Amino acid sequence: MKRLRKFLAKNPLFVLLLALPVTLAAQVLGWPPVTVFVLTAIGIIPLASYIGKATEDLAAHTNPRIGGLLNATLGNAAELIITITAVQAGLLELVKASITGSIIGNLLLVLGFSMVVGGVRHGPQKFSKTNAGRNATLLVLAVIALAIPSVFSASMVGRTPTSLAEAGNSPAEALSLGVAVVMLALYALGLFDASRPQGTDAVRGAAKEQDSPLSYTLPKSEAPHWTLPQAIAILALSTIGVVWLSESLVHVAEAVITGLGISEFFLGIILVPLIGNVAEHLVAVQMALKNKMDLSTEIAVSSSLQIALFVAPLLVFISLLLGHPMQLIFNQFELLALLAAIVITILVSNDGESTWLEGAALLGIYLILGLAFFMLP
Amino acid sequence: MKRLRKFLAKNPLFVLLLALPVTLAAQVLGWPPVTVFVLTAIGIIPLASYIGKATEDLAAHTNPRIGGLLNATLGNAAELIITITAVQAGLLELVKASITGSIIGNLLLVLGFSMVVGGVRHGPQKFSKTNAGRNATLLVLAVIALAIPSVFSASMVGRTPTSLAEAGNSPAEALSLGVAVVMLALYALGLFDASRPQGTDAVRGAAKEQDSPLSYTLPKSEAPHWTLPQAIAILALSTIGVVWLSESLVHVAEAVITGLGISEFFLGIILVPLIGNVAEHLVAVQMALKNKMDLSTEIAVSSSLQIALFVAPLLVFISLLLGHPMQLIFNQFELLALLAAIVITILVSNDGESTWLEGAALLGIYLILGLAFFMLP
Amino acid sequence: MKRLRKFLAKNPLFVLLLALPVTLAAQVLGWPPVTVFVLTAIGIIPLASYIGKATEDLAAHTNPRIGGLLNATLGNAAELIITITAVQAGLLELVKASITGSIIGNLLLVLGFSMVVGGVRHGPQKFSKTNAGRNATLLVLAVIALAIPSVFSASMVGRTPTSLAEAGNSPAEALSLGVAVVMLALYALGLFDASRPQGTDAVRGAAKEQDSPLSYTLPKSEAPHWTLPQAIAILALSTIGVVWLSESLVHVAEAVITGLGISEFFLGIILVPLIGNVAEHLVAVQMALKNKMDLSTEIAVSSSLQIALFVAPLLVFISLLLGHPMQLIFNQFELLALLAAIVITILVSNDGESTWLEGAALLGIYLILGLAFFMLP
Repeated sequence: MKRLRKFLAKNPLFVLLLALPVTLAAQVLGWPPVTVFVLTAIGIIPLASYIGKATEDLAAHTNPRIGGLLNATLGNAAELIITITAVQAGLLELVKASITGSIIGNLLLVLGFSMVVGGVRHGPQKFSKTNAGRNATLLVLAVIALAIPSVFSASMVGRTPTSLAEAGNSPAEALSLGVAVVMLALYALGLFDASRPQGTDAVRGAAKEQDSPLSYTLPKSEAPHWTLPQAIAILALSTIGVVWLSESLVHVAEAVITGLGISEFFLGIILVPLIGNVAEHLVAVQMALKNKMDLSTEIAVSSSLQIALFVAPLLVFISLLLGHPMQLIFNQFELLALLAAIVITILVSNDGESTWLEGAALLGIYLILGLAFFMLP
Repeated sequence: MKRLRKFLAKNPLFVLLLALPVTLAAQVLGWPPVTVFVLTAIGIIPLASYIGKATEDLAAHTNPRIGGLLNATLGNAAELIITITAVQAGLLELVKASITGSIIGNLLLVLGFSMVVGGVRHGPQKFSKTNAGRNATLLVLAVIALAIPSVFSASMVGRTPTSLAEAGNSPAEALSLGVAVVMLALYALGLFDASRPQGTDAVRGAAKEQDSPLSYTLPKSEAPHWTLPQAIAILALSTIGVVWLSESLVHVAEAVITGLGISEFFLGIILVPLIGNVAEHLVAVQMALKNKMDLSTEIAVSSSLQIALFVAPLLVFISLLLGHPMQLIFNQFELLALLAAIVITILVSNDGESTWLEGAALLGIYLILGLAFFMLP
Repeated sequence: MKRLRKFLAKNPLFVLLLALPVTLAAQVLGWPPVTVFVLTAIGIIPLASYIGKATEDLAAHTNPRIGGLLNATLGNAAELIITITAVQAGLLELVKASITGSIIGNLLLVLGFSMVVGGVRHGPQKFSKTNAGRNATLLVLAVIALAIPSVFSASMVGRTPTSLAEAGNSPAEALSLGVAVVMLALYALGLFDASRPQGTDAVRGAAKEQDSPLSYTLPKSEAPHWTLPQAIAILALSTIGVVWLSESLVHVAEAVITGLGISEFFLGIILVPLIGNVAEHLVAVQMALKNKMDLSTEIAVSSSLQIALFVAPLLVFISLLLGHPMQLIFNQFELLALLAAIVITILVSNDGESTWLEGAALLGIYLILGLAFFMLP
């Protein structure tokens, strides 16, 4: 009993696994959709966390190059599974909103919360300007690339309102594919750059790899310590669990939208990113509490970069294969939110110092955006 | 006679007080509206200056926390009185334009003019990057918050043109209120942070307080030296004077718009901010001439921050109480002007150095914006 | 034969002069327009290069003030000649697109390519933050000024759809002229500032002149060594050649647009800037290969500044004189491209260091923009 309490104090998320059998019961007994939705959401949180931890452990057992690749691709596995399931169900609005929501959630909510709790405990916190600046540049490039098809599409409407309806918007589709190809190519180049050992010094190569925003790994001291078979088993089981829960989540999504009177857009932009990223968010906040603001900003920014440069373009291709082609066309409001989140990250990184007041301001912006998203019809 | 000349050389604005009796005469004798308008405008300038000086003196007589609060709230008293009078008269377009106009006027006109005169006399001038950067971050956050209801409103139009007309635009109103609450909360947190003594060292607390952009005070050497009763009397009399002149100004505003063929928008965005801020502008330029560019930028930026974080949200609530609910919805052009002004401030602060050529460029942008505002129908 | 080979190895562009007689033959024999277009484009490349080299040589023979002025005004002679010829032919869409295209080509294509080749050979490259930052500020100011008439025009449409059609868009024309006057004034002030000797030390004045982004000159070691009469003769002959080829280019432009199925906009935004700037682009890339990243960024940024502050406003006046008044109204898409290009330049300059990955990202954005421009109807 004492050991169990000690184990739970170290692994508080373990308790949330209790949601899994209850979700199963709810599905079998036909409980109301909102209840199933909440249970499913709670169940995804610890599983997403275990996927993350198992991936990092696996990465630690391989060489830096493969480890970096594993982290980069499986780091957003939970989110990728949820969105692919949603694409299959044709909920494209929700999928696009969750891309935006993940980025702004990481940059405003996670960074803001980290700065507040870290700043209250430690006063103004410092972090590396260089890393933050380099990541900010990549982030701006990613968002500009994401914005191009949207503005293109808006320009087209202004210019040729009739021919567009006839053409079935196909130029915008071609442009989305072009953007996706370029972004994946940049992502691959970035991973290649990160995994390349510098000179003959393998240790330096490994050190550099941890610096890259595209294949970020937590330092050893923060990582779990499973054996290779344990890590693989946990990864496999957690992934199967997330697939099952994602299907459950998407299955009840429409009933939840009607039941709670919220929009598909709000579900996608606020709730889905929260569900998929809670575990990661907690790690960022813990790092801020330990006054490791470098790690905290790194987690928030690299997670956003992976969404923008890897998840978003991958979903364009997957949606095409699944017969529900998704275009990278975001509305004016999503573009403003992305712009806002990124400008703020740049300003904060430019400074190399964070305060709780800056954090409170980020949370304030997230709150206002959330309010606006909630009220959009 | 010699003492009077010496007094006037030190207090050149005192002469402008002569406009007060003439304004009274003009009102009684029914002079043309444009004349009354010009006289009223001239009369407000010295009174706004005396409110500012009396507030600073009052702040110096109290402890840092209350002093900071006084400066923060009464620092824009003249502008607040003018805009509240305009809200009462239902001139909401003018009020919103004057919010934008105050921010861009401070950042482009005041900063530009300061850089030109300071740069011509002293060559490239340096100032603290850290302060300027921190203030710029808060400014960006403030403007993003101001932009959200506008973009929300534009998105709504695109999406549901009919339901919006029925709903009477109420979601935008709720969002404006939400934004106002968040901004006032951030402002209060900022004041709290600024007034909090750091450690047990009261001197350090006072020193830190002067650094905050939200409750900025001039250094002792630049402040006037009145006794406490003198300061209170001057503050009371000046405030009464500004209330009277504001009512006169708003009363003739519509006749002036028709008479001069200018728009309510132009009056609000260029003329009203000039009238309310001339005194403050002169101080910023004087500091630049004394090669105290730190103070000069601080005045311009902190004044903009007070408008964005305090005056604008306060007006949302006051307008609601006065039965003329004002929404924080700005047009595309105001948003561009705000964005332009702030991006420039960031670039200049990033650099930590200003030249007369940069100042000339700021004035050039203000000139072009003024021309565009003048020609908007 | 051996000497010829050695000469060509040093002056590879000389070979392209062979295109001149072939173009003449093509014109006389009535070859198809696309062939004439390609030959003309090839012919312009070496001539534009010779204009540039002769101007620099001429500048080296005069005093710094006149030299700076020569460089500033003749630096974009080829581009200016092509665009004036296009204005005469009424191809205003092409002219405006080529202004945007020149700026984004310099900032994305040239800078991106320089960073890739320099970064692959030398690893991360450093350059002066101060210069890059100052230039970025001027660039932002220039683009904000260019954006004002466009947003003004868009605001007008939203406000008074009927009165605008009646008024013949004349306020936008007046505003374009106002913007042009302000920009030329700033440009003149910038040249004056650059040419002004600092203190009594003439050497310092000359050194400072090379720092200015508005009247940039290559260091002596990189410049050619002609005598004064040689330089004048080469300048005159090259200019005459470019005038002739520009007329040929514009003459076949419409046939090429129909023949290749591309838009006037695409021709203007991608192809014309490439033709006019290839020689300059090569110099920037060579400097990056020599690890002189300071010169490389300086060429790209100062060339963009000259287009924005000198060529664009000059074309407004020239177009008015030629009876085809051109307004500085750019479409949403051009504004996004300009914004993107400039934000990236600022982020890169802020950092003071470039990598091949950043360069690849710039090229990726240029590629996506090019794709979008190609598909715009």
